[in-house]
Amino acid sequence: MRIAYQGEPGAYSEAAALRYSDHADVLPCESFDEVFEAVESGRATHGILPVENSIGGSIHRNYDLLIEHDLPIVGEVELPIQHHLLALPGTQIAQVSRIYSHPQALAQCEKFLRELPGVRVNATYDTAGSAKLIKEQQLRDAGAIASERAAAVFGLDVLRSDIQDYSDNITRFLLISRVTDPEAPADKTTIVFSLDNQPGALFKALSVFALRDLDLTKVESRPIRGRPWEYLFYLDIPVSGQDLRCARALVHLAEFARTVRTLGSYPSWKTREAAARTAEAQA
Amino acid sequence: MRIAYQGEPGAYSEAAALRYSDHADVLPCESFDEVFEAVESGRATHGILPVENSIGGSIHRNYDLLIEHDLPIVGEVELPIQHHLLALPGTQIAQVSRIYSHPQALAQCEKFLRELPGVRVNATYDTAGSAKLIKEQQLRDAGAIASERAAAVFGLDVLRSDIQDYSDNITRFLLISRVTDPEAPADKTTIVFSLDNQPGALFKALSVFALRDLDLTKVESRPIRGRPWEYLFYLDIPVSGQDLRCARALVHLAEFARTVRTLGSYPSWKTREAAARTAEAQA
Repeated sequence: MRIAYQGEPGAYSEAAALRYSDHADVLPCESFDEVFEAVESGRATHGILPVENSIGGSIHRNYDLLIEHDLPIVGEVELPIQHHLLALPGTQIAQVSRIYSHPQALAQCEKFLRELPGVRVNATYDTAGSAKLIKEQQLRDAGAIASERAAAVFGLDVLRSDIQDYSDNITRFLLISRVTDPEAPADKTTIVFSLDNQPGALFKALSVFALRDLDLTKVESRPIRGRPWEYLFYLDIPVSGQDLRCARALVHLAEFARTVRTLGSYPSWKTREAAARTAEAQA
Repeated sequence: MRIAYQGEPGAYSEAAALRYSDHADVLPCESFDEVFEAVESGRATHGILPVENSIGGSIHRNYDLLIEHDLPIVGEVELPIQHHLLALPGTQIAQVSRIYSHPQALAQCEKFLRELPGVRVNATYDTAGSAKLIKEQQLRDAGAIASERAAAVFGLDVLRSDIQDYSDNITRFLLISRVTDPEAPADKTTIVFSLDNQPGALFKALSVFALRDLDLTKVESRPIRGRPWEYLFYLDIPVSGQDLRCARALVHLAEFARTVRTLGSYPSWKTREAAARTAEAQA
């Protein structure tokens, strides 16, 4: 198993890949597009993508990519996020005059940053990449917000730990692959659909699930490119796509939806974690 | 009328403010928080906030701020977005080795950027701020993606125009104020609500509108901070909050929703534009 992820070693996506399978190989990629390409070409068996954060919300770009490509979702991972302020060994916090990180990480440490007046904040594409920048350019007046592992990878010190505003900061990642997960049964299904633009259309769409007592764990709307203010809808349904109620609901939805597509049916993180714990106890 | 906006002169938010009222004063602010503060303190009568783009989706941060503060929405503006590549006069496109802009603008010019191999792309907080950076630091090898007005404000040349991937790239802005709009009647209402985490809860919530033949023009979910995977829901309803069906639907919703709040009732952009055209024709 080799999991492609976006970012430098020490990125949260890498940590999520290792959380999913601690004996997997990992393959760093420059972009999310490259993650898909790595799986399509066979350079990796799996790809991992952050899709949602409990504070920041959805990462829409990755939902777009799931639609553009034809790789099914085969799993998910939840990773608690702990941000740290990293700097070159010897740098004191009073010397830090600029801080680098990904915009989402910066947003998640807003309170901390507000208490550092006069410090310039620079948005970059990557948390671990910000740590790498400081190391490579030997920036003695700079800090990076990144993971503890990024500090270890790039030989930086942790100046302040756990600087995120909210302690329950969790990111949800999806695994894409041509290989399904043998370790746990599918109990979650993600679909995407579009509707005609008419009154009550979304209500009607949700009714195909409500009428079958299927709860929806996530509803997300996303603009359709090229058609201003028309939306695609993403749903997570907490059963396998093979479940008879789910299968019937999808057939019902297809009667009137413009398009319906199943992006994947896979074990939820809760189920997979429980299965892993049971396997460990038995070993 | 003085409208506070986030960004430097030449920012798209400034253009939206002037589109809303071409004889308004404008007040540049460093952050969205400062926009709210300017209206609360009376330094500005109105504030303007981008909340949604037809390509990129919602700007969640500004929905959070609408909840944290107590300033009602009094209007909206739609602004077509045209991105240009700006550089110092004399710089040729072959000399450009790095490009600065806001992450959303960079994402909206992806195809254009992919055709410039070897060019480094730097995310910043502001499109017009990127233009300013190039001017101030006299960066002869750099370009900024920003508006035509930013070129005029900072004395830059337009190297390439209309470089956005999709021509129907529109941003929707909301106006916040203690003063309601005298120019057109309210015909759009934005509410936010939260639900108990139980099967069919969202379906039940949408039913209070569907049962009264009220169409929903936008549904958006947003994680509740501090409660992982629980969501707030935002709805746009295409009638005034004074409309009897809407008022009844909100009372009905409040019977079982955990919280319901009306963020504002205001003239939709379409209505306001039509009213302005009529006034112009009569003048």
